[in-house]
Amino acid sequence: MNQEQALHLLQYGTTPVSNLLFDYYACIGLNEKEMMMLLHIYRFIEDHHPFPTPGELSERMAITDDECSSLLRTLINNGFLDMHKNEDDNQVMYETFSLEPLFRRIVEAFYRPAEDLRTEAEGEGELY
Amino acid sequence: MNQEQALHLLQYGTTPVSNLLFDYYACIGLNEKEMMMLLHIYRFIEDHHPFPTPGELSERMAITDDECSSLLRTLINNGFLDMHKNEDDNQVMYETFSLEPLFRRIVEAFYRPAEDLRTEAEGEGELY
Amino acid sequence: MNQEQALHLLQYGTTPVSNLLFDYYACIGLNEKEMMMLLHIYRFIEDHHPFPTPGELSERMAITDDECSSLLRTLINNGFLDMHKNEDDNQVMYETFSLEPLFRRIVEAFYRPAEDLRTEAEGEGELY
Amino acid sequence: MNQEQALHLLQYGTTPVSNLLFDYYACIGLNEKEMMMLLHIYRFIEDHHPFPTPGELSERMAITDDECSSLLRTLINNGFLDMHKNEDDNQVMYETFSLEPLFRRIVEAFYRPAEDLRTEAEGEGELY
Repeated sequence: MNQEQALHLLQYGTTPVSNLLFDYYACIGLNEKEMMMLLHIYRFIEDHHPFPTPGELSERMAITDDECSSLLRTLINNGFLDMHKNEDDNQVMYETFSLEPLFRRIVEAFYRPAEDLRTEAEGEGELY
Repeated sequence: MNQEQALHLLQYGTTPVSNLLFDYYACIGLNEKEMMMLLHIYRFIEDHHPFPTPGELSERMAITDDECSSLLRTLINNGFLDMHKNEDDNQVMYETFSLEPLFRRIVEAFYRPAEDLRTEAEGEGELY
Repeated sequence: MNQEQALHLLQYGTTPVSNLLFDYYACIGLNEKEMMMLLHIYRFIEDHHPFPTPGELSERMAITDDECSSLLRTLINNGFLDMHKNEDDNQVMYETFSLEPLFRRIVEAFYRPAEDLRTEAEGEGELY
Repeated sequence: MNQEQALHLLQYGTTPVSNLLFDYYACIGLNEKEMMMLLHIYRFIEDHHPFPTPGELSERMAITDDECSSLLRTLINNGFLDMHKNEDDNQVMYETFSLEPLFRRIVEAFYRPAEDLRTEAEGEGELY
């Protein structure tokens, strides 16, 4: 076996996903496509590239750039994703995504009785 | 802060997802809903419960039991998921899922030139 | 490249270690050898083999069986590791390790002011 | 329960450690203290701070700054850790650690027959 390839494979990396995300995303009103996009954004943030473009996201996904942009808007409007404006040392503005709203809702769901959650998810479901 | 709750949160666990899965699932013809279901199955296997029912899967997902069953069939028919029949010490039959076909295709994609992949994904796309 | 080997490598697995463990083990009075042994025990528990023998642990470590046994006793005596006696369906007794004391102390340390911790670690250090 | 604290705990992060490291570090001649230091360096690299000082490392460890410096030298001299000199856009020199030598030896060990490994580890052991 080619050791360079094995080395490349070993160093390719792993993203640790909290089991809370797997267990509660549906409870808080996210579907699989939305959750998967948030996981991609999480990876970009972890890789210190906190503002991926729709194009960069769609390259790794099975959806088009346009669907990507539309999904991003939905996630922001529904309170799962934040966009922050920042300024660097040279007064250049730049933007970053933050998943804090997602984590906040996951934590809330984790500490709420199961019945409340079901009712809420059903309620949100009607809006789509 | 309630330390029992903090302890519960800390021990809730994390699922390590290979970045190869995130980067190559779309290349090999999976969409987000399918990939997410495979991640749920992966978690069940890791938790030593290697044959979750459609009901157990749909409980954690934003899809119905019926969609779950249909998605499982699609994943098996398209060669991403295997079902194995096994026999325990008391000759009782039991079944397990295996994600080896998925990992095999991910590894293949990892070692194939990028152009070939795009063509194949488009080709598979037409079948859906 | 041999794809069987790549597949083996990809499926070899990853253990997610909470950064709290890395940041607080020294604060609560553990040294590197002790922490590493607890990580090995954590992996055995995750692999559903919750009572590894000193021999099984030392096989993966740079210490002898005897050092392993002695280290296990130290960890239990100092309140980082528990041993539970259990009974299976056929009234056969079996034992399991539990890392709950470790996680409990990590959580305590996480919520305590930094000064208190330093004092305690120094205090414990004197006992060794 | 205080949700801010829960949020902080959830976002504290996890470091995914390849099981190959746990299984093979002793085979390639590392002891627990050395392996633990390499894990700390790995975390610093992942956090995009690829050249931690002995002081930064010892803050999280149960050893002094001096032991830390000495351990770093040992790891470099024994071929487990590399130091690279780099130059940024403003021609300022900076240094980074690289764990590639470690991963290279782990991969080698993974593909070598078990007997060879034991002999080598014993041989290296004599040097310390």
